[in-house]
Amino acid sequence: MEITKTERLRNKLHEIIYEADTPFGKLFDLFLLLLIIVSIVAVMLESVVTIRLIYGQELAVIEWIVTIFFTLEYIGRVIAVKKPLKYIFSFYGIIDLLATLPTYIDLLFPGLHFLVSLRAVRLLRIFRILKLVHFVGASNQLVRALKKSRLKIAVFLFSVIVLCIILGTIMYMIEGPESGFTSIPMSIYWTIVTLTTVGFGDITPITPLGQFVSMIIMILGYGIIAVPTGLVTAEFMSKDKTVHQNTQVCPNCSADHHRDDAKYCYHCGHSL
Amino acid sequence: MEITKTERLRNKLHEIIYEADTPFGKLFDLFLLLLIIVSIVAVMLESVVTIRLIYGQELAVIEWIVTIFFTLEYIGRVIAVKKPLKYIFSFYGIIDLLATLPTYIDLLFPGLHFLVSLRAVRLLRIFRILKLVHFVGASNQLVRALKKSRLKIAVFLFSVIVLCIILGTIMYMIEGPESGFTSIPMSIYWTIVTLTTVGFGDITPITPLGQFVSMIIMILGYGIIAVPTGLVTAEFMSKDKTVHQNTQVCPNCSADHHRDDAKYCYHCGHSL
Amino acid sequence: MEITKTERLRNKLHEIIYEADTPFGKLFDLFLLLLIIVSIVAVMLESVVTIRLIYGQELAVIEWIVTIFFTLEYIGRVIAVKKPLKYIFSFYGIIDLLATLPTYIDLLFPGLHFLVSLRAVRLLRIFRILKLVHFVGASNQLVRALKKSRLKIAVFLFSVIVLCIILGTIMYMIEGPESGFTSIPMSIYWTIVTLTTVGFGDITPITPLGQFVSMIIMILGYGIIAVPTGLVTAEFMSKDKTVHQNTQVCPNCSADHHRDDAKYCYHCGHSL
Amino acid sequence: MEITKTERLRNKLHEIIYEADTPFGKLFDLFLLLLIIVSIVAVMLESVVTIRLIYGQELAVIEWIVTIFFTLEYIGRVIAVKKPLKYIFSFYGIIDLLATLPTYIDLLFPGLHFLVSLRAVRLLRIFRILKLVHFVGASNQLVRALKKSRLKIAVFLFSVIVLCIILGTIMYMIEGPESGFTSIPMSIYWTIVTLTTVGFGDITPITPLGQFVSMIIMILGYGIIAVPTGLVTAEFMSKDKTVHQNTQVCPNCSADHHRDDAKYCYHCGHSL
Repeated sequence: MEITKTERLRNKLHEIIYEADTPFGKLFDLFLLLLIIVSIVAVMLESVVTIRLIYGQELAVIEWIVTIFFTLEYIGRVIAVKKPLKYIFSFYGIIDLLATLPTYIDLLFPGLHFLVSLRAVRLLRIFRILKLVHFVGASNQLVRALKKSRLKIAVFLFSVIVLCIILGTIMYMIEGPESGFTSIPMSIYWTIVTLTTVGFGDITPITPLGQFVSMIIMILGYGIIAVPTGLVTAEFMSKDKTVHQNTQVCPNCSADHHRDDAKYCYHCGHSL
Repeated sequence: MEITKTERLRNKLHEIIYEADTPFGKLFDLFLLLLIIVSIVAVMLESVVTIRLIYGQELAVIEWIVTIFFTLEYIGRVIAVKKPLKYIFSFYGIIDLLATLPTYIDLLFPGLHFLVSLRAVRLLRIFRILKLVHFVGASNQLVRALKKSRLKIAVFLFSVIVLCIILGTIMYMIEGPESGFTSIPMSIYWTIVTLTTVGFGDITPITPLGQFVSMIIMILGYGIIAVPTGLVTAEFMSKDKTVHQNTQVCPNCSADHHRDDAKYCYHCGHSL
Repeated sequence: MEITKTERLRNKLHEIIYEADTPFGKLFDLFLLLLIIVSIVAVMLESVVTIRLIYGQELAVIEWIVTIFFTLEYIGRVIAVKKPLKYIFSFYGIIDLLATLPTYIDLLFPGLHFLVSLRAVRLLRIFRILKLVHFVGASNQLVRALKKSRLKIAVFLFSVIVLCIILGTIMYMIEGPESGFTSIPMSIYWTIVTLTTVGFGDITPITPLGQFVSMIIMILGYGIIAVPTGLVTAEFMSKDKTVHQNTQVCPNCSADHHRDDAKYCYHCGHSL
Repeated sequence: MEITKTERLRNKLHEIIYEADTPFGKLFDLFLLLLIIVSIVAVMLESVVTIRLIYGQELAVIEWIVTIFFTLEYIGRVIAVKKPLKYIFSFYGIIDLLATLPTYIDLLFPGLHFLVSLRAVRLLRIFRILKLVHFVGASNQLVRALKKSRLKIAVFLFSVIVLCIILGTIMYMIEGPESGFTSIPMSIYWTIVTLTTVGFGDITPITPLGQFVSMIIMILGYGIIAVPTGLVTAEFMSKDKTVHQNTQVCPNCSADHHRDDAKYCYHCGHSL
C-alpha cells in the first residue's frame, strides 16, 4: 500500500502547513509569523544606507535563510494540497511565490535589483496566518459593514474627486504658476492635500483671492468628512442587530449564518 | 405628412440623446462619457508645460475633435427637444454651451486664452449621464440626509466662521506682522487653516502666548469636528428609522406618518 | 399726563430696538446687522497695510459713522429699558459698550491704538440680532446636545491634555533642543500640533526614535478623534429619539412606543 | 494598650491620606493636587533656557519643597497602609517613588541629570486624586465603550499599519532617496504622516507618480477615519441600549441577558 503511505504523509503535511488545530500546526504558524516579521524588518533595515553599510552581510544571511525556508514551504504547500494548480494560481499562491522569487532574481540578474523591494509582499502572508486565529470575527464585521456601504462610499469618493478637479482648476486659474500651482494636475494635488486636511505646506496660496478660496475648501473638507463617517456609523449600527449570528455551517446543506442559539439548521432541519 | 416624418426623426433623436433605455441611447451615453473624460485629461495635460511643448499639436487635435462633437451634440439637443429655449437656459443647457464655447473663443480672440480653463466645466456634464445610471439611488440618500441637516450645518458653519474671525483677531493682536500674521484677514486665514486641522505651516506662531492660544484653537478644532459628524450621522440613522413609517394618511383626520404596522389612526382612532 | 407720553415714547423705542415683530423693528434689526458687517469688514481691511495706506481716510469715515450710530443706539437702549443698570451690566450691555469705546479711546489716547482691535467684539452683537430670527431652534438643539455630553467631553479633553504633557516630555527627552524641541512647553505644543493632526511642520522629529514615537502619536490622534465624535453623535441620537415617541403603553393591548401627540392606540384604536 | 494607640494613629493617617470623605482628607487631596500642578509647571518652566537662567534658584527651591513633601507623603503612605509591600509594588506606589527619586539622584549623581525629566510622571498622580472625585462616572463610561470595541480597534490599527508598510514601500520605490524618502522606515513614517492627515510637509513627493499615489493615500486616510469613529459611536450607542438588560442568570437553565423587567426566563420559562 505504497500510495496510502504517501497519502498519509500528505495529509500529515496538510495538517501541519494548512491547519492550526494540532500543536504542530500551531507551532508551524507561529514560526512562520516570526519568520515573516524578521524578514520584513530585515528588508526595512537594509533600505537604511548606514545600516546596510555596516550589517549588510548579516542581513543578506538572514535574507537567504528566510528565502530558503519560504521556498521549502512553497514546495510543501504544492505537494500537500490535492489540486496543486488551484493553489499555485490562487491569491495566496501568487503571494507565496512573490515572497521567494525576488531574492533569486537578484542573484541571477543583478540589474533588476529594484525588484528586491517586492519582498514587502511577504507582509500580506500575515493575513493568511491570522485567518486561523480567533480575532477574524471582528475583522469580518468590519469588512461586512464596509461592503454594505460600498456603493454610497463610491458615490461619495466620486463626488469628492470631481469637486477636487473643479476646485483645482479654479485655484490654477487664480494662483497661476508663480505660487507653485504650475499645472492643473499639480493644482488638483494641492486641492486634495487641502480638502483632506493633510496640508503639507509644500504649495500654499499667496494671492488674497486664492487664500479666500482655500478657506472655503478647508471648511468644505472639514465638513464633508462627516459624510463617510455617518455612512459607516449607520452601517455599523444596523449590523449590530444581526450580531447574534454565528459562523457555524450546516454539515448537511452548507447553509451558514445560523443564529447563535440554533440547534437545527434553519434550511434543512439537520441537527447542528 | 412631412411634419410627422420630422416629428418621428426628432423623437428618434430624443431617444438616442436624452434617454438610456435603448441600445443606441446607452451607446451614445457611454461614448459621451468617454469623450468627456478624454477631453478633461487633455485639458489637464495641456496645463503641464513640458507636455504642452511636446504634445501640444496632438492635444489641439483632440480638443477640436471633442469640440466639434460637443457642438453637433448641442445642436442635436436643441433640435430634439420640444421647447428649445427651456433647454438652452436650463442648468445643463448652459453647461453644454460652456463646454464648447472656450475653444471657439480661443480661435477668434487669442487674447482671451485664459478662458480655456473654463473647459473644465465639461466635468459637470458627467453628472447628467450618471443621472441615467443605476447608482443614483445611493447618491439620493446622501443628498436627502444632507438636506435634512442643512439648517443645523448652516448654524454650525456660521458659528465656526464667527469663531475664526474672533480667534483670528486675537492672534493678530498677539503675534503681529513679524510672525507672518500681517493683517486680520491673513490671521483669519491662519485660524481656519489651524482649526480645520489642515496646518500648512506657511505661517506659524512664534511667541509663547501665540503658541498657547494655538494649542487651544487646535484642540477646539479637534473637538468641534464631532459636531457636523454627529449631525450627519444622526440624520443618516433617523432616515433608517423612518423607514418603518409609511406615507399613509388617515382618511378621517388626515394625520400622517403612521407606523407601518398601524391598523388604526393614532390621532382619531379611525381604521386605516 | 406728561409721564404717560414719555412712557409711550419709551415703549415705542423698546418695540423698535428690542423687538422684531413690527416692520420698524425688523428694519432696525436688518440695518443693525448690515452696519455690524460693514464695520467688521472695515476693521479687517484697515489691518491690511496696503489698503490702509490708500483707503485709510474712507475707512476712518465709515468707522466714525458706525461708532456714532452705535453710540446713539446704546443711549437708546439705556433709555428704552425699564431697569437701565441691569442692561448696562448684562453680557450684551458690556458688548454694546465695548463696540463703541475703542474709537473714542483712540481719539483721546492715541497711545492705546492697539485697543482698536477690540472693535472685533462687534461681531458678537450679531448673535443678539439672530436671536430674534427663526433658525435659533436648530442652534438650540446643537447647544443642548453639547451641554448633555459636557462632562464626558471635559474628561476626554483633560485626558488628551495629560497625554500631550506626558508625550511632549518624552519627545523632549528623545529629540532635545537640536531638532527644535527647545523646551518641554515647546515639545507639548508640537505634540498637540501632531495629535490633533494639524501638523504645521515648523518643528519635526529628526532622530529615528523620535520619528517612531511620532508615528505612535499620530495613529493615537487619528484614533482618539473617534471619542468626541462618538460622544456627540450618541447625544444627538438619544435626543432625536426621545422627541417624538413617548413611553405610554396602551391600557387595552399594551402596545408601546406611541407618538407624543397620539390620542388613540395605533394598534387597537383604544383611547390612551 | 500601646498597640491600639499606634493602630488608631495609623487609621487616622489612612483616613487623611487615602480617603476623601473627611474635611482633613479633602483638604489633603486638594493640597496634593495643587502641589502636583505647581511641580509640573516648575518642571516645564525649568526646561525653558531663558527662564532657567533667571529663575533657576527659585525653581530649585520649589522643587526641593515639593520633593520633601512628596517624600514625607510616601513614608506616610507606607506607614498608614496595612500591607506596605503591596502598596510599594503597586502601580501608584511605583509612581509615587518615581515622583521623588529623580531630585535625589540629581543631587547624588549630577551626571544623570537627564533623569530629571522623569519627574513628569508626577502628572500621573493626578489620576489617583481624581479617582476620589465625582466625575469618574463619565470617564468609566468612556473606558467601558473603548474596552468593548478593543478587538475591532486592534484589527483596524493592525490593518492600518500593514497598509502603511506596503504603501510606504511603494512610495520608497517610486520617489527614492532624492525626494527625502531615504529609506523604507522613513517612507513609512511619511505614509503615516499623510494617512493620518497630519501632513508635516518635512518630506513631500516631487515626482508626478509619487504625487498621484499620495492623492490616493490622502483620500484613503480621509475615508478610513470613518471606521474607528463608526466603531466607537456604535459602541457608545449600544451601551445605551443594553442598559435595559440586567446581569441576572436563570437559576434553571443559566441563560443570561434578561430584560430588566423580565419575570420569567425567556429560554426555559422558569421564574426568575
